[in-house]
Amino acid sequence: MIENKKIAVIGGGSWATAIVKILSENNNTLNWWLRNTDDVNYILQYKHNPRYLSDVEIDLNKIKPNNNLDEVISNSDIVVFAIPAAFLPSALEKTKKESLNNKLIVSAIKGMIPDEHVVITDYFTNHFKIPAEQVAVVGGPCHAEEVAMEKQSYLTIACSEIKNAELLCELFSCRFIKASPITDVYGVEYSAVMKNIQAIACGIAHGLGYGDNFQSVLVSNALQEMSRFLDAISPMKRDICASVYAGDLLVTAYSQFSRNRTFGNMLGRGYSVKSAQIEMNMIAEGYFAVKSINEINKKLKVEMPITSTVYHIIYDRNSPMLEMRLLKEQLI
Amino acid sequence: MIENKKIAVIGGGSWATAIVKILSENNNTLNWWLRNTDDVNYILQYKHNPRYLSDVEIDLNKIKPNNNLDEVISNSDIVVFAIPAAFLPSALEKTKKESLNNKLIVSAIKGMIPDEHVVITDYFTNHFKIPAEQVAVVGGPCHAEEVAMEKQSYLTIACSEIKNAELLCELFSCRFIKASPITDVYGVEYSAVMKNIQAIACGIAHGLGYGDNFQSVLVSNALQEMSRFLDAISPMKRDICASVYAGDLLVTAYSQFSRNRTFGNMLGRGYSVKSAQIEMNMIAEGYFAVKSINEINKKLKVEMPITSTVYHIIYDRNSPMLEMRLLKEQLI
Repeated sequence: MIENKKIAVIGGGSWATAIVKILSENNNTLNWWLRNTDDVNYILQYKHNPRYLSDVEIDLNKIKPNNNLDEVISNSDIVVFAIPAAFLPSALEKTKKESLNNKLIVSAIKGMIPDEHVVITDYFTNHFKIPAEQVAVVGGPCHAEEVAMEKQSYLTIACSEIKNAELLCELFSCRFIKASPITDVYGVEYSAVMKNIQAIACGIAHGLGYGDNFQSVLVSNALQEMSRFLDAISPMKRDICASVYAGDLLVTAYSQFSRNRTFGNMLGRGYSVKSAQIEMNMIAEGYFAVKSINEINKKLKVEMPITSTVYHIIYDRNSPMLEMRLLKEQLI
Repeated sequence: MIENKKIAVIGGGSWATAIVKILSENNNTLNWWLRNTDDVNYILQYKHNPRYLSDVEIDLNKIKPNNNLDEVISNSDIVVFAIPAAFLPSALEKTKKESLNNKLIVSAIKGMIPDEHVVITDYFTNHFKIPAEQVAVVGGPCHAEEVAMEKQSYLTIACSEIKNAELLCELFSCRFIKASPITDVYGVEYSAVMKNIQAIACGIAHGLGYGDNFQSVLVSNALQEMSRFLDAISPMKRDICASVYAGDLLVTAYSQFSRNRTFGNMLGRGYSVKSAQIEMNMIAEGYFAVKSINEINKKLKVEMPITSTVYHIIYDRNSPMLEMRLLKEQLI
C-alpha cells in the first residue's frame, strides 16, 4: 500500500469531490483546491462540500481544503486536475510554468481545451513543457454519484510511462474502486471526449421518439466510430470493448442523468441550442467537444456519421428530425 | 421489390407476430401457423392476435392463419420459425423430413435445443438434412414490442449462401426495418444465446444493488467474453461491435423488460431459481442457454467468468452475493 504521498486535487465539483473521497481512503495527504473561499470555510467547519456530493464526509485529518492554488501545488508531488476543460486555461493563468516541474500531472478532466482543440495532456506538454511520461489521465466509466455511495466502480489510468500509471492505480484503488494501468493516453482522452458527443446523439434520438432498438444500434455504431477515430489519431493495438472505452460510452449513453444525453434529448424535443442551455443552466461538454473533433477530423477524414450529425444539429442549426433520418440510413 | 413469395411463419408469440407484421409490409403471401385453434379463429374474426402484440392489425388479404402445420409448410417456399427453442422438437415431431426439402429455412429463434446443446441451424441440418446454404438465421437487436409500434429497427440475416441472406433481407426490409445480410451464421446464433446469459448476470448485479458504473463494466466484459467464445467456436473475421452482436447484447442487458434480466434481478434479490420461475410464470431462455454453453465450453475452455458465474448461481445454487464478489475481482 502506497502511503503518505502528497497529492493535490484541483477542483470543487462532483468529480473532484469523488476523487478526494477515493484518494482519502488510503493514507495520503490531500491538498484540495477549491476556487471559492466560502466553500473552503464551509468544508473546514462542517466537513462536507456544500455544493456537490454533500453526503460525502471530508476527513480533515487527511484533507486540507485551500483556495490558494500556488500553495496547493507547491505542497504536492502529484497534481490531479478535475475542473471543466473550458476553465483550465483561466485557472492556470497565473501559475508559473516551473511550478509544475518534476510533479506527476494527472488529468481527470473529460474534454478538450475549446479554442485550441487539444486534449488535456497535450495542453500540459505544450504550455508547461511537462514531459509526456509525467502526464497521466484517469478514465471511467465512473459516475461521481456512485462513488459517493461507495458502489463498486472501475478506473483506468493511462500514462506513456507505465510505472507512473501503476503508481497512480495503487493510489486510486480502494475498497470500492479497482484501477488498472495502461499506456494508451490518447485513446482514453479522445474516447472520453467522443462519448459525450455520442451521448448527445442518443439523447436527440430519444427526444425524437426513437426507441430502444434504435438506441442499441446507435451505440453499436458509435463504438465502431470511436474505434475508427482512435485508430486514425493514435494507431495502436487496443480492444475497444475494454471498459475504459466501451464502458464509459455505455454509462454515459444509457444514463438518464448524463448531462450530454439530457442536452441532446432537449434538442430532439425541439428546444433550440440556446434555450436548452438556458434551461439546463449549464453547457454540456459535448457541445464544445463536437466542434473540436469536427475540426480535427477535417484533416483525418475519418467516417463519422454520428459526430457529423451532432455537429450539423448544434452548429449548422439543421433540423434534428431531418438529420436523424439521414443518419438512420447510414447505420447498420 | 420482392413480391409474392409464399412464406410460412411458425409461431404465435410476440416475436412471430412482429415478423408477420414485418413481412406483410411487402406483398407476400403469409401462411401463419399458430398452435391454438381458438387463436386462429379469433384472428380470422377480429384481425388481431388475442394474446401477443394485440394492437397489430392482421391483414387477412395477405395473411392466412392456420393451425395445420403440414399445410402451412407445404404451401410455402420459405419457412420462418419463431417459437421457443425448447418447443421446436415437439412442434416438428410429426413433420416428415422431406417436407422441408428445397425450402429456405429461417430461424428467428434465439436459443438452443436444450438437451442436445445445439443451435437451431444445426438442428435443421442434423435432423432434416437441410443443406447449410438453405438455412438462415435472423438476428436483432429487435424488441417485438417496438416493431408493433413501427419504431425504426435493424435486423441482420445470416446465411452461408449470401444470396439467400440477401433475398431474405429484401423480404424483411420495410418502412421501419433495415435488414443487412452476412454469412456469420454461428456468430449470430451463439451471440444471441450468450446475450441472454449475460443479461441474467446484469439482472443479478442490479438485484444485488450494484450500480450503473458496475453495469457498464459488466457489459463491456460481456462483449469481450462473447468475442472470445465466437472466435473459439467459429473463427472468422467479425466486428463484435456490429449491431447484431453488440447491439443485441445492449438492448437486452439494458432493458427493464428483458425476461432474462428480470429473472436475474429476482435471483439477485434473493429468490430461488424455482420461485423466480414460478413468480415470472415462465422460464427465461438464458436458464437453458447457460447449461448448453457451459457444456460446450468444457471442450473449448474459453475464459468465460460471466457465464460461469451465472451457471454456478443457477445450477450449483451458489450464493449470488458471493459469486458476484468473485466476479467483480475478475472484471477490468
